[in-house]
This record gives sequence, C-alpha cells and structure tokens, in this order.
Amino acid sequence: MDSNKPLILVSNDDGYDYNGIKSLIKVARTLGDVFVVAPAVHQSGMSSAITFVHPVRTTCIAQEEGYTAYLATGTPADCVKLALSQLMADRMPDVVLAGINHGYNSGLNTLYSGTMACAFEGILHGVPSVAFSFGNYSADADTSACEPIVKHVTERVLKSGLPKDVCLNVNIPDIDGQFRGMKVTTGDMGRWINEWEHRVDPTGRNYYWLTGEFEIADKNEGLTDYYWLQRGYVTVTPTHVDQTDYASMDAIKDLLL
Amino acid sequence: MDSNKPLILVSNDDGYDYNGIKSLIKVARTLGDVFVVAPAVHQSGMSSAITFVHPVRTTCIAQEEGYTAYLATGTPADCVKLALSQLMADRMPDVVLAGINHGYNSGLNTLYSGTMACAFEGILHGVPSVAFSFGNYSADADTSACEPIVKHVTERVLKSGLPKDVCLNVNIPDIDGQFRGMKVTTGDMGRWINEWEHRVDPTGRNYYWLTGEFEIADKNEGLTDYYWLQRGYVTVTPTHVDQTDYASMDAIKDLLL
Repeated sequence: MDSNKPLILVSNDDGYDYNGIKSLIKVARTLGDVFVVAPAVHQSGMSSAITFVHPVRTTCIAQEEGYTAYLATGTPADCVKLALSQLMADRMPDVVLAGINHGYNSGLNTLYSGTMACAFEGILHGVPSVAFSFGNYSADADTSACEPIVKHVTERVLKSGLPKDVCLNVNIPDIDGQFRGMKVTTGDMGRWINEWEHRVDPTGRNYYWLTGEFEIADKNEGLTDYYWLQRGYVTVTPTHVDQTDYASMDAIKDLLL
Repeated sequence: MDSNKPLILVSNDDGYDYNGIKSLIKVARTLGDVFVVAPAVHQSGMSSAITFVHPVRTTCIAQEEGYTAYLATGTPADCVKLALSQLMADRMPDVVLAGINHGYNSGLNTLYSGTMACAFEGILHGVPSVAFSFGNYSADADTSACEPIVKHVTERVLKSGLPKDVCLNVNIPDIDGQFRGMKVTTGDMGRWINEWEHRVDPTGRNYYWLTGEFEIADKNEGLTDYYWLQRGYVTVTPTHVDQTDYASMDAIKDLLL
C-alpha cells in the first residue's frame, strides 16, 4: 500500500460478487488504495449481529499493488471489526465505505441493516464511515448510476472528515441517474405491517415467511429520507450509535424512582 | 387467556432453558396472563437480525390456563415480530418483557443485543417494552435476586405506560440483591478493544475468536449505566430506535451540498 494515497476499507452485507460492492471498489480505486473485507456468504438483514459462538476465518482473494481483498465467514460487523482490529492493524484506513446495498436502508430499516452495521463499526473504531444503499432490490441490479454519488461523497469525507461519532447513511433512488439533487434528511421511523406470510407445508405443518409493507411515519414531514427518495433525491442521513432517549429521562425517573 | 388480567409477552435471546427467562416468566405470572415466544436455539449477539432467506417455524410447548409458550427457529427480533403480528393477533399484549439476559446489555452493547432487539420490536408494534439484563454471564447464573426489580418495573409500566417510542433497558448488578438503589442513566458509549484472539489451527491456518475488553467512555460522567452498575445500582436507560444524528444535519449540509 502506498502511504501517500488515502487508504479505503470497503465492506458490505451482500457479499463480494454483487454489483454494489463492485461499484464501490471501482470508485474507491480511483481515490486511493483499497482494502476489502466482505462476507463469504450473503448476510442481508443481519443488523449488528456478531459471531462469538464459533471462530471466524478469512480467505485472501486478491493482493496486488493498491488492492487487497479478503472474504470472512462472519457477519458484516465481524468483517469490519476484523479489518480494523486485525487485518489492517499496521495502518488504519482513512474512510470506511459500506455497500452499495441492493435495496434501500432508509429510516427504520437502518435497524436491520448489515450495511449500516459496517458503518457503525467504522465510527466505533474512530474512522469516518459512509453506507450507500440503492433503491433496486434485485441481486443483479446495475449500480453504475450510483458511482458519481459515491465519488462526490467520498471525496468530501476524505477531504474534511465527519463529526465525531457520526456516520452517513446515503440512499440513492433507482431512476437511471436522473437525480433531482441531494438532501440531508432524518430517518423515517415508520413501521412494518403484514410482516409474515403464513403457509402450510405438504405435511400440514405451519411455517412463516418474513415479508411485509412499510408504513411511513414522516413525523418530520418533508424532512425524512423516505419522503425525498420518493421525489427523486439522493438522501444523506447523519446517523449515530447512541440510542439513549435523553428527552424522557425525567419522565422515567418520575415513573420508577 | 383471561381478558381482565394484563397480558404479558415474554421473550429473550438465550433461549427457553435459561434461568433468566424462567425468572421473568415466574414474576410475569404473578401479574397477569403470560405468552412466551423464545428462540429455539441460543441467539446471543444477534442484534436486530431478521430472517428472510428461509422461513421460520414454531413449536408450541405449553398451553394452559393463563400460560402459553412457543419456541421459534428465528432470531429474537423474529420471535417478537411473530408473536405480535401472528401468534397474538387476537389480542395485543399490555407489555413486552425481554430477558433476563445472562450478562449486561449496558451502553454500547445494546447495539449487539438480541434482548434489546425484543424490546425494540415491542415499541415498533406500539407496546410498552422493557429489557432486563443481569451482570452474571454464566449459563447457569441464579437470576432470582432480579425478580423484585422485574416486579417493580413491570408493575409501574403496566400502571402508567411509557413515553411513545421509548423502551427501558434495565441492567442489574450481580451483588446478591444488595442493591444500593436504582438510577435512570444514559448508555456508556465506550468501545471494545483487543477484539480478536488470533489462533492457528493444527493444519497451520489462521482463525479468529471474537473477544475483547470494554473501554468505558463515560462522556456523561456520573450519568452512564456503566458508572452506576460499578457502584451497585440497578440502572434504567430509556432507549429508542431512531439513530438520526439531528445535531449534525447542518454540518453535513455544509460538507456535501
């Protein structure tokens, strides 16, 4: 690795053979040296799950001038932890890029997102981090229209950093690159309804598929990612780990003490 | 189920055969009718992971007056989603109780916690929810000293509810019930260091065990759960799902737009 160039860690939750991570790697290689640690097996919906009931193993699949790539048997969070605490111990990256996820991680869905877990691990290790997600859920989605967005955001973050303990959650609509613009938004804390499809197997036993429809909240009307994604904008939601509800501390004291 | 009594949903991440959930069920049965959906397999560290690459199945293991219990093959979040959207569709519970986890879920560790995931699903379905965790990590920990705390908190929540979209993260020190008192706290957003133990297998290949030491932050000195747990207090941290960093929105606009 050339220490004069920025060093960029790339991870995701879909795995190494998805177009999303290929777009991210392509752009990152124009901006600096690139180190990839991706899950060996598709890990969508894994949230910030971590693996400690069995060990994690890695396979180095590329090692050339300015580009190194590993697959790891764990979760997305494991991949970034392993990168930052073991595999890259000699030199921390200047930025962590996660995704590009095939499918939005807007609003409430950050809770379930393995892509966001990568970005959370980045900031927990003190590295500016950005998660990218695209509004096309198919495994073979063409993510090339996202690449100028990735380049713009990554260049700015490499140049100026990010506020302490804050990562960016970038969502990109699937409108063939015809973006209306970029908005800094809040997350839409809606809810999932009709979450399960109940079926009966050929032997008469019940089983349940997770599915559902997202019911938007938009309590911050006109401010949320969901609202602006529907209107053709790229959205950027500053996101942190701390989930303490500071506003209700006095009410809870009154309730319990 | 007797509709005059409160209806209490109990779940956890350790599974049905742990003392923590047995304590929770024991106390809950003194307060109302109880419905349990617990993971069929130990699910620690699963965060808010959800299962959609294969279906989830359930086994009913108890059905008697005032008490029903299911095991489900999914994650803790799946268990509560399945309870609230399918198995209890006839009548929503009055409260969701999660745990008692064998091991703290204080501060940063809420990010990785399956116990907290249960409480998050509760509030996302509009039900007041409380997660309980105990400062003893062993599988056969005796959780009986936690039971008066569970009773106190649950009674108050059943009587008065909780602020909208806020759940409680209750941590209980392992000091034989000699609690100094109860404190409403923030989460300590410290960080994990020395996260991996690198080993070499008998064939010479590398593998990595997730481990580590928690380095406290206590940026809110004297306000965090970790601080008060060390001093013998039961801590209650009001917790929400929304991770938008509202404070940095203007700074991010300046950076990107």
